[in-house]
Amino acid sequence: MTTLNLVILGPAGSGKSTLTATFGKWLHEEMGFRVCYINLDPGADHLPYKPDYDVRSIVTVQEIMRKEMLGPNGAIIRCMDLLVEKAEEVVNEINKLKSDFRLIDTPGQMEPFTFRRTGPELISKLLRTGSVLNIFLVDPELASSVSDLLVVELMGLVVQLRLLAPTLIVLNKADKLKGSLDVDKLLADPNYLVERLKVEIGGTISDLALSLWDAFSQYLQSSRLVKVSAKTGEGLESLYDLIHEAFCVCGDLT
Amino acid sequence: MTTLNLVILGPAGSGKSTLTATFGKWLHEEMGFRVCYINLDPGADHLPYKPDYDVRSIVTVQEIMRKEMLGPNGAIIRCMDLLVEKAEEVVNEINKLKSDFRLIDTPGQMEPFTFRRTGPELISKLLRTGSVLNIFLVDPELASSVSDLLVVELMGLVVQLRLLAPTLIVLNKADKLKGSLDVDKLLADPNYLVERLKVEIGGTISDLALSLWDAFSQYLQSSRLVKVSAKTGEGLESLYDLIHEAFCVCGDLT
Repeated sequence: MTTLNLVILGPAGSGKSTLTATFGKWLHEEMGFRVCYINLDPGADHLPYKPDYDVRSIVTVQEIMRKEMLGPNGAIIRCMDLLVEKAEEVVNEINKLKSDFRLIDTPGQMEPFTFRRTGPELISKLLRTGSVLNIFLVDPELASSVSDLLVVELMGLVVQLRLLAPTLIVLNKADKLKGSLDVDKLLADPNYLVERLKVEIGGTISDLALSLWDAFSQYLQSSRLVKVSAKTGEGLESLYDLIHEAFCVCGDLT
Repeated sequence: MTTLNLVILGPAGSGKSTLTATFGKWLHEEMGFRVCYINLDPGADHLPYKPDYDVRSIVTVQEIMRKEMLGPNGAIIRCMDLLVEKAEEVVNEINKLKSDFRLIDTPGQMEPFTFRRTGPELISKLLRTGSVLNIFLVDPELASSVSDLLVVELMGLVVQLRLLAPTLIVLNKADKLKGSLDVDKLLADPNYLVERLKVEIGGTISDLALSLWDAFSQYLQSSRLVKVSAKTGEGLESLYDLIHEAFCVCGDLT
């Protein structure tokens, strides 16, 4: 098969690095695929996997803070902008790694990667020579109300629109979801969702939210959420199935 | 008039602190309002205004990095979670400041503030005793294509859904917008926008984007984008008009 670049994105604390490690191990040990690991986070502290390419060989947030006497925000931005300049070099290094799956772990903060030029630039370069699938990872904190569920869908779309590659939405820490929002029922039954949303948020915003959800319904059929636990390994097989499905739909894999 | 809490949010580098300073100065000097300044960014380096309340009196990202031997991402998260614990204290201090406008500058990275409990917790407490209006600030980098414009609208909605307070979308650095995307025409003429969007992004995503835009059209009428330049002061009067209008519509000000 051709190489598939899996770009793992999500808010800080959603478990990107853990999923990178666990899913990579699963793909290799259970499925027999060749897997390599890439770290694009210049602010990463400890990684639960051994990166085959590590952007910290170019720059680290800590180093920039020290050398340029910047605060953490300024240093993160400086690093992101530096990576735009080095995008060609970074992608060349990544493309040297021959594998079935390249698991690409992204910066702790999703925002500077997605909203500055860094993410779009790197992904568009990766798309020139290979296939890319974004995995947008969120944790239960962001799925504790019906409007949060809408936020998650909206953010998944934002990621897709900014990075212009197909995007799967993955709820991590599924083991912690017990007792909280009934995501499955909400996604399966639009009437139930609409009722809950009306109760939860009032005012004009609920009308807008409802019409947006209508628009999503169609979208959701082909790219529903998948629940995993990067810690326990729960749901990794479903994630693999969805990746395979999404990839086929994209026409990149036959 | 009652106090209005203006919460200035936006991606790192969008110019939150600069707008806080410039708009505060304008409100005071040109309009004669009593204004106070609040900094909620524990990672702030230099501020272009003198904060009347500063969250760095509780904690700073740099201090947490040093004391807890954490990387910048871990330290930012730790600070945000600490502020949730101290939310009552923070909001009490803010509420002691008597003013017409409280300009509340938020963390450099919008994501941990908005997607963790920090932002929702602080705003809901502020709403108990006063009025809140979010100003979601973006820079031209995020408005350089039609799909980016959609991203901006989606993000504005995400902010509103997470923080549950009315949200204005403000394009900063208007002086740099010249020659780039014709935002006014795109927002004024849905047919033009739809045509451009079809050309720009293909595939199923464009269909979804189009139906979302339909849903937004209604929403956009009452809360259109405003363009400002925090640097030159351009557009501050329009921003004030929109704030006044939004506030009246919300029924908080009579």
